[in-house]
Amino acid sequence: MIELQSTHVHREIHEQPDVLARLLQAECDATEGLAAEMKRRDIQYVVVAARGTSDNAGRYAQYLLGSVNRLYVGLATPSLFTIYNAPPNFGPHALVLGISQSGKSPDIVSVVSEAKRQGALTAAITNFSESDLAQSAEFVIDLHAGEEKAVAATKTYTAELGAIALLSSCLSGDRRQRAALEAIPGQIRQALAMHSTLDRIAERYRYMQQCVTIGRGYNYATAFELALKLKEMTYTVVEPYSSADFLHGPLAVIAQGFPVIVIAPSGTMLPEMKSFMGTAKERGAELIVISDDDEALALGRVALPLPAGVPEWLSPLCAIVPGQLLAMHLANARDLDPDQPRALHKVTETR
Amino acid sequence: MIELQSTHVHREIHEQPDVLARLLQAECDATEGLAAEMKRRDIQYVVVAARGTSDNAGRYAQYLLGSVNRLYVGLATPSLFTIYNAPPNFGPHALVLGISQSGKSPDIVSVVSEAKRQGALTAAITNFSESDLAQSAEFVIDLHAGEEKAVAATKTYTAELGAIALLSSCLSGDRRQRAALEAIPGQIRQALAMHSTLDRIAERYRYMQQCVTIGRGYNYATAFELALKLKEMTYTVVEPYSSADFLHGPLAVIAQGFPVIVIAPSGTMLPEMKSFMGTAKERGAELIVISDDDEALALGRVALPLPAGVPEWLSPLCAIVPGQLLAMHLANARDLDPDQPRALHKVTETR
Repeated sequence: MIELQSTHVHREIHEQPDVLARLLQAECDATEGLAAEMKRRDIQYVVVAARGTSDNAGRYAQYLLGSVNRLYVGLATPSLFTIYNAPPNFGPHALVLGISQSGKSPDIVSVVSEAKRQGALTAAITNFSESDLAQSAEFVIDLHAGEEKAVAATKTYTAELGAIALLSSCLSGDRRQRAALEAIPGQIRQALAMHSTLDRIAERYRYMQQCVTIGRGYNYATAFELALKLKEMTYTVVEPYSSADFLHGPLAVIAQGFPVIVIAPSGTMLPEMKSFMGTAKERGAELIVISDDDEALALGRVALPLPAGVPEWLSPLCAIVPGQLLAMHLANARDLDPDQPRALHKVTETR
Repeated sequence: MIELQSTHVHREIHEQPDVLARLLQAECDATEGLAAEMKRRDIQYVVVAARGTSDNAGRYAQYLLGSVNRLYVGLATPSLFTIYNAPPNFGPHALVLGISQSGKSPDIVSVVSEAKRQGALTAAITNFSESDLAQSAEFVIDLHAGEEKAVAATKTYTAELGAIALLSSCLSGDRRQRAALEAIPGQIRQALAMHSTLDRIAERYRYMQQCVTIGRGYNYATAFELALKLKEMTYTVVEPYSSADFLHGPLAVIAQGFPVIVIAPSGTMLPEMKSFMGTAKERGAELIVISDDDEALALGRVALPLPAGVPEWLSPLCAIVPGQLLAMHLANARDLDPDQPRALHKVTETR
């Protein structure tokens, strides 16, 4: 058994409050610059190019920039650029945003380079401000996360969410939005303290082979990211869903005892998630609930509470924390090294 | 055990060539009208609103309209419209395209109605030309698929792909594209004949609890749709991936014997898929290969051949056929009713 406290992933999960505080201080001007250029060029839609964890940050951008800034955000299809050599024309009103921890994945660099060649506005969110991705984009937001040594990304994920939240607040110019964002590092610290030991809960799932994660709206991203952490660190087959998509077919897979992890923080989406939990329980699902709402938590066979007072639009930054810790503890319960998943490397270069 | 030949799903799978031939004949004018309006209004990007099977047809549109017609196509986030009440502004250069067999899902209707209210161009692809969705859109392409009685959609899926292919050929005005499309009903008939009995292959997977499906580019849609059919009809936990996304983390789940279904028809993507198959085999995966390429088929523990001569951009219409049949036969091997999956209804009304 590994001493968790000595692992990179344990340290990096606990660095998240400091990373976010640093990002918010250091990247304010760069982000204001990008927001100003988006207005100047009358940006009407945003295309995010990203893979893996960074793609999940892109999912957050879809909801946050969509609802707060009323921008349509879609995800890119990199193979049109790298393999088919037939990229779409973005037109003059698109922002193409590459998100990548390493800034090295050739497919993401290709999408941003081609967009720049076409004359579209381009930006990069990355932990390496000298990377190919950073150099191919007009604007760069640097994550300032320090080196991430564990293969499974944790602190760079919440930093990417923080960068997107910062961009949203710069676009809106809403001071309350900015103030709420400033409170996030402390709230993540609270979330970490609430779950300092998840080992007993992880024991329960030692032999779980498969599960689904459910989130919708802002926390659609959290469902995807939690599923990815569980796959990477514990080799469980985990599929993420929006509660609505799940009802269009996949509901059929639920049998008695099937584990369903539901991300359901307070806010506009909560009634929908409670209704979903009712349906899943009727079908015999075992619910693991991540929430700050007592009623929602009470519906779970296992409850993973969140700190109170986090606004819904920022909830993904806190809601992933118990999930990261659960994945790490479950890896430990399975005698796996959470820092070095089999078959994976830190930088995945796909084209 | 159910007599498969008496099921709705068996009949509907075999109706696909006739449905497509009917659609191509009947909807030519309506589709030309939509294509002309897209040019008149200088459409620069397309947003698809859809759920379940129809969402997978939307994935095909991303690649086909992207590469052939150079249009960026993204997927909608319906909860911004129905739950958060904060829809993005599409701007004057967007086409918002709702795809729904029934035309009844309230969330899809909401996205299209709001887009129309904003003044964006709207269109619907549906099997019910009197549905709410059809009535909320400016342009309608009717699938002409006849009533689909099985809960798992089959003939309406390939009809939706056919409608999108028809739109692409109307936009390009390329006669060769149109001629290739006209050949598809016959090629689907060939694919059906090649797999009239999959029962022996289905037996092998009687106790398979989980698998992944892999496709990229045009057949990213096929990977998603095959995964959905297997979930709906057989209750297997199946996760679809692009080969590139799979390498960014999920590769870790592959252990000795893990089943991986790869969709790899001839074309530009084939070398990428072969390289992926090599990686998966090194990790011990059991490959089930859907392809018309002998080398690719030889890499599979199980080979599901496709008819030769189908161009890559139309390959998803044929490549799903052995998958539909496999799901149906596997349901039968498990003594499940393939027409009526537990927990599901034909029309899923999500908001």
